[in-house]
Amino acid sequence: MDIKINLERLQKEIESLAQIGRDSQGGITRPSFSKADLEARDWLKEKIEGTGLTFREDGAGNIFGRTEGEGKTIMAGSHIDTVINGGMFDGSIGVLSALECLRRIKEEGVKHSKPLEVAAFTDEEGNLVGDFLGSRAFIGQMNQETLEKGMSQFGIPFTKILKQTEFSIQSIMEAHTQRPEIEAFIELHIEQGSVLETESKTIGIVDCIAGKHYRWCSFAGKASHAGTTPLELRQDAFLGLADFALKSTQHVATEHYGSMVTVGRVSVMPGAFSIVPGQVDFSFEFRSQSKETLKSLEKHLFALAEDTASTRGLRFSSKLVDETEPVKIPPRILDIMKEECEKLEYSYMTLPSGAGHDVQILAELAEPGMIFIPCLDGISHSPQEMIQWEDLEKGANLLLQVLIRLAS
Amino acid sequence: MDIKINLERLQKEIESLAQIGRDSQGGITRPSFSKADLEARDWLKEKIEGTGLTFREDGAGNIFGRTEGEGKTIMAGSHIDTVINGGMFDGSIGVLSALECLRRIKEEGVKHSKPLEVAAFTDEEGNLVGDFLGSRAFIGQMNQETLEKGMSQFGIPFTKILKQTEFSIQSIMEAHTQRPEIEAFIELHIEQGSVLETESKTIGIVDCIAGKHYRWCSFAGKASHAGTTPLELRQDAFLGLADFALKSTQHVATEHYGSMVTVGRVSVMPGAFSIVPGQVDFSFEFRSQSKETLKSLEKHLFALAEDTASTRGLRFSSKLVDETEPVKIPPRILDIMKEECEKLEYSYMTLPSGAGHDVQILAELAEPGMIFIPCLDGISHSPQEMIQWEDLEKGANLLLQVLIRLAS
Repeated sequence: MDIKINLERLQKEIESLAQIGRDSQGGITRPSFSKADLEARDWLKEKIEGTGLTFREDGAGNIFGRTEGEGKTIMAGSHIDTVINGGMFDGSIGVLSALECLRRIKEEGVKHSKPLEVAAFTDEEGNLVGDFLGSRAFIGQMNQETLEKGMSQFGIPFTKILKQTEFSIQSIMEAHTQRPEIEAFIELHIEQGSVLETESKTIGIVDCIAGKHYRWCSFAGKASHAGTTPLELRQDAFLGLADFALKSTQHVATEHYGSMVTVGRVSVMPGAFSIVPGQVDFSFEFRSQSKETLKSLEKHLFALAEDTASTRGLRFSSKLVDETEPVKIPPRILDIMKEECEKLEYSYMTLPSGAGHDVQILAELAEPGMIFIPCLDGISHSPQEMIQWEDLEKGANLLLQVLIRLAS
Repeated sequence: MDIKINLERLQKEIESLAQIGRDSQGGITRPSFSKADLEARDWLKEKIEGTGLTFREDGAGNIFGRTEGEGKTIMAGSHIDTVINGGMFDGSIGVLSALECLRRIKEEGVKHSKPLEVAAFTDEEGNLVGDFLGSRAFIGQMNQETLEKGMSQFGIPFTKILKQTEFSIQSIMEAHTQRPEIEAFIELHIEQGSVLETESKTIGIVDCIAGKHYRWCSFAGKASHAGTTPLELRQDAFLGLADFALKSTQHVATEHYGSMVTVGRVSVMPGAFSIVPGQVDFSFEFRSQSKETLKSLEKHLFALAEDTASTRGLRFSSKLVDETEPVKIPPRILDIMKEECEKLEYSYMTLPSGAGHDVQILAELAEPGMIFIPCLDGISHSPQEMIQWEDLEKGANLLLQVLIRLAS
């Protein structure tokens, strides 16, 4: 069907939303349930209603705009929250492109037998209590204790943050009871990597979303005087981490090409010039597209940590922070996307997503699908996050055709 | 000469000084020019004058107690400042043992041809503007710019701290003009390591004080998304440091046994779970008893850092923070100490000092000598710092005999 989105209108809406929560460093700071986020929610509600869609907000603050039909719902969307000092495209383009698609379908009176919905899920970025609060609540897999004991990344108890809103732990836990049956969920997003740019492709059809395993770990040794403790008598916790980080990376790079392992956050104690480090706390994560690889890495890497500790006179300990399973995109969705790309004559490729997205949570109850568009130099979560508007136009046009196919 | 120190009196004085600056965590926090330090200075002045010595304070706040004689001065002492939450023996026992020795010499009317002095040097611990402020000013090698631009480790400009005292940058720079000629300087100190304890020796006769090289270093790479940046495309600054730290340690351990290398302070940026580290700042120090080894390490280790950076797509940069030359104790002083140990029938051994001490600065203008006594489990710079009083008695008795020999 020869119908296209209105880029000018979509661009104006993306730029308009990007004015809400703009911070002093030129980025956007709009974590869920912040003042800026509450303002953005009002803005989005107005847009949804202005489009003639039925507005709905569930107990977790997830926002929906619906046009009725029969059978299971075809849903598209993403999130409108951001990291601290983030960019204007991550999340927003998925929600606003879906809204534009539904608007065009209504404007043109395109027939669709199934209901269509645009969705914006709460706290995808995990500023409050870990990633995917909204989509986890939506599928009914939120952990009540996580909510009750949760602290935001600013150190504020989640229960205190909730008091500034119309939501409660109970309303979040019950959010899933309010949802319609979903057949498919399609998310348009920036790639957050540089594969499309390197390969000069406009569209990325995601075939798999990596699963991940997050742990907070420690090596504990013995702090001692750096001038008087011979190297061979030291229990240097930092060297333990150095050894473990290099060997882990080496293992993943050689045995599980394409999987990822990262030490991103490190705290060395006591942390002085003349003192051999007695303890180091660090974040440790690995990701893979294969469930089996994740299992194998979990076993191998933590055995390696224990080995490193025992060789170096240290103690290793760790605590699971989060884990998600990898998600394979079903062939039916991949085929539809490829066919529509070819009809539209857009250059495309299939690729995995290393980053996590709401769609991987939704995959528990709906067929998942994900469209990537390139972002400049792979940069995201930064004021430097940038896209080409013509890439977005193509991504949104593809989304439109996919939604029409799925809903017909 | 069969004269001994009075341990009961010495112990009482050490315990009395340890009440000044006692902190809430059971340690002593008495950095130079703090309120506690100013109180300790008054206390020490009273003790010096009560002993019948001539009190003198120079423009850098170094404190002296003198008994006259002819020729060059024989000096003994250490420092009374502490690290934050430090112990009660580091520094204090050197000053108060020297004071007790001079008191006994006066009490017994021991004849000494040369003048004798007890000394307490300002800011040995480097809380204000790097180690050894007092002894560096005393020998006339203080850098005026260091004083003018210096910030205390609490982030307060040194010039502001000086305003709370009777001292000024000019008075510190001129301190060396007020000093007498010094023949020898002897420092009694806790070992701050566990060699004496392991070897079951009461006295350590230091034959060398290691030189050191302190740098503040960085590896800079590129922060990127930990889910979307393949391992082989990363410029992970933390892995650069991990690699460099392990290789440096390996090099020193295998090529320069007995020398030290330490990464003690580490700051990883931006420091988040899902972000590949884009920069790491870290302290890097190495120590050796050999000037040649220090030179060779400087050349080799920084070449290694550059190599590591270029292999991993990083940039390495560094800034010299401090360096000191190794000091050899002259045979005359070693021989006197050994002879007196044998006369006293104390178990002793010679050993190097890995930690830095005022005596190594004084070595520029006087014959240096250093006596170690054991400290429990090698612990220092901690409220757990502990000695056996009978070890101190022996150390102070040796100091007394050495001073009598040198001054006669």
